[in-house]
Amino acid sequence: MSPSQIVIEFIRHIEVPDLDQAIALLAPHVEYDNVPIGKVHGPDAVRAILQPFCAGFDEIDWVIHHQVSNEHQAGDASSGAIVMNERTDRFRSGERWIELPVCGVFRVNDDGLIELWRDYFDDATLRSQLSPS
Amino acid sequence: MSPSQIVIEFIRHIEVPDLDQAIALLAPHVEYDNVPIGKVHGPDAVRAILQPFCAGFDEIDWVIHHQVSNEHQAGDASSGAIVMNERTDRFRSGERWIELPVCGVFRVNDDGLIELWRDYFDDATLRSQLSPS
Repeated sequence: MSPSQIVIEFIRHIEVPDLDQAIALLAPHVEYDNVPIGKVHGPDAVRAILQPFCAGFDEIDWVIHHQVSNEHQAGDASSGAIVMNERTDRFRSGERWIELPVCGVFRVNDDGLIELWRDYFDDATLRSQLSPS
Repeated sequence: MSPSQIVIEFIRHIEVPDLDQAIALLAPHVEYDNVPIGKVHGPDAVRAILQPFCAGFDEIDWVIHHQVSNEHQAGDASSGAIVMNERTDRFRSGERWIELPVCGVFRVNDDGLIELWRDYFDDATLRSQLSPS
């Protein structure tokens, strides 16, 4: 699989959700950064965030609008391929959908493992839907 | 210039700031979307946002950490090339720097003009620095 395909596969596993399969695509030293909230390191820490969050919803649907990468650029000095995507992360609870516009940055190493996952979004947009007034 | 170079050039003009040169790189129907705030259309509307914002600072420095694009992918059905970048947008007022983590999505048309500029960021991160308590 190309770096771009690995990122798509990772997201598809989260949608099931099949966290064992998703976590298996992470490097041992993976950095997971929710930019406005903070970052954690390591697959166990990623699971500790994703598991309760995913368990709180009846359906997960992350729509990828665009995804681009530098995997075809030769001579890039950086380690690993950068994959970036523009998404709408959707979560259903009963009849209600939460929708969060997200821009994600991933770095996939030469072993095909994700060593960076950094999501940009507006925290208030998420919180206002998690706790509607 | 490639689509990726056009986006870099656009950002360099904003840093000067030389808004005439920046606006000249926008398509007539350009969409400028600050995701957590809202979108405007057309070069005049973009200028109406950028001009007072840029005028409020003594120095502008937008650091591009990563930039990737699909310009090398043949057979892409979408119109124009998608360019995405991860940035820290920095603005200096006197001795104080404001720093905003941003993820940008650009679409550059076949005439080399930017027809979409969409920035993802956390609005509270920006506002807390614009109006420090």
